[in-house]
Amino acid sequence: MSDDSEVLLANEAFYSAFARRDLAAMDALWARHELACCIHPGWAALRQRDEIMASWRSIFSADDDADIRCTRVDARMHGATATIICEEHLGGAQLTATNAFVLKQGQWRIWHHHAGPIAHRVREATAGSLLN
Amino acid sequence: MSDDSEVLLANEAFYSAFARRDLAAMDALWARHELACCIHPGWAALRQRDEIMASWRSIFSADDDADIRCTRVDARMHGATATIICEEHLGGAQLTATNAFVLKQGQWRIWHHHAGPIAHRVREATAGSLLN
Repeated sequence: MSDDSEVLLANEAFYSAFARRDLAAMDALWARHELACCIHPGWAALRQRDEIMASWRSIFSADDDADIRCTRVDARMHGATATIICEEHLGGAQLTATNAFVLKQGQWRIWHHHAGPIAHRVREATAGSLLN
Repeated sequence: MSDDSEVLLANEAFYSAFARRDLAAMDALWARHELACCIHPGWAALRQRDEIMASWRSIFSADDDADIRCTRVDARMHGATATIICEEHLGGAQLTATNAFVLKQGQWRIWHHHAGPIAHRVREATAGSLLN
């Protein structure tokens, strides 16, 4: 497995919990010994863990599972921290996300999520070469 | 000086270069030995340094200086990397930004910028306590 394989699995677990609206799984994925931050599309930053989990509870309170999937995933490793840049496909919308993880006791935990909608693309041909 | 003082100065230098439309200063601030990424509001991610600098050149090609300032600045330190979360005030718009830095040869360089507009706020009273 490559150096980034474990954090890529953690990123997949994040989107799996999101898709299944699984609050317990989402709670388990978020770091507890780290100052967390979550920036949902169009929201101001939530900078406290309890606020972040309340936001997921609110988002998950809708009836249906979320049709979300993740593409163009790049991981940038910095020792015990990692940042993942990816695109989210949520319903008909496309968004860009920054997800930052920290390695604690052998587990990658997310401590920062920032997502926002893509309104237009620049030099799509170049970007296409980065498609995962 | 606190542990985060140097990276906070680098973040200020980033917004100073942005406000002055100073392409040379912006170029000097971006990491050269790191895979860079830049997500302007509404854009897909630019994942190559030359694309990123071309985007700044394009943004700076407007005539006037940018009326941009930065508030609610939080730095999260992880050894030789740091992530700053802040709010940008650009003209009449408010945006949230994630700026990630890496320490190289004693200098903090930005390698990731992600900004998106704030459409609404949740629990402003709580967020207000984090005002810098």
